[in-house]
Amino acid sequence: MLIREATAADWPGIWPFLRRIVAAGETYTWPRDVDEATARRLWLPGPPARAVVAVDDAADGTVLGTAKLAPNQLGPGDHVANASFMVSPAAAGRGVGRALGAHVLDLARAEGYRAMQFNAVVASNERAVALWRSLGFAVVGRIPEGFRHPSRGYVDLLVMHRQL
Amino acid sequence: MLIREATAADWPGIWPFLRRIVAAGETYTWPRDVDEATARRLWLPGPPARAVVAVDDAADGTVLGTAKLAPNQLGPGDHVANASFMVSPAAAGRGVGRALGAHVLDLARAEGYRAMQFNAVVASNERAVALWRSLGFAVVGRIPEGFRHPSRGYVDLLVMHRQL
Repeated sequence: MLIREATAADWPGIWPFLRRIVAAGETYTWPRDVDEATARRLWLPGPPARAVVAVDDAADGTVLGTAKLAPNQLGPGDHVANASFMVSPAAAGRGVGRALGAHVLDLARAEGYRAMQFNAVVASNERAVALWRSLGFAVVGRIPEGFRHPSRGYVDLLVMHRQL
Repeated sequence: MLIREATAADWPGIWPFLRRIVAAGETYTWPRDVDEATARRLWLPGPPARAVVAVDDAADGTVLGTAKLAPNQLGPGDHVANASFMVSPAAAGRGVGRALGAHVLDLARAEGYRAMQFNAVVASNERAVALWRSLGFAVVGRIPEGFRHPSRGYVDLLVMHRQL
């Protein structure tokens, strides 16, 4: 796969699986019925945020996944990055999330960030938690019952962090 | 003092001390040179956010402090409130922060939130940390060196939380 900066032309390849992931309501603190214009504004807000896509370079350039990088806070907190990731369910098991994670960590270093923080990793999303741990993140906070999971009820949200 | 819903007419009474607090760069993760239009949009974004002011009912209605209440996350995370507080330095020592805190906790309960979370309490802001502890909040997370303090260098940010 190839990972490159996302362009406006990539949105039609992102929206179908992003919508599906958000609608499932298991991993993202977005409105489950988010409309396309809002989703696009949230995912591709423009500078200082950056977005990348992982595309299938052996096939037709299908978008396999996408990631967003942005300051987690503003002003005196803007040296800590935040990042978000969406992988197409059709591309599960191909290492897209890990490749995007490694890429975005490098990108964040290149942009001058000193650390990266995730604010709301759903504790029941065990694959994501394990992936981020394997990429050097530690759990630095836990919001008790911060997330309403559609089948598990209230579950915790984790704050995860690593220095860069 | 009287605490009531903020209106557009309160902004001229809020902006001078809000600007001063943000410019000091010791407690808020906002751009220190925030312009007035951005500050107003951040502080008074409209529903579902709520804003209140504490005014001096023994004098001329001077704004002593203000607080903002909003969902901390969207969608499956929107049952947890976030709140922010600004107290005019001219009104320090009068219990304005505590009164606003208690008021906003009641307001959050009335709005149906299940918990309240602060994402970025500057660890060196010891009075704020002590106030929130006395109002029932616990530290549930710590972001190492998440804040660039103008005189203390990098200091931690605390995530604080309480059930409602």
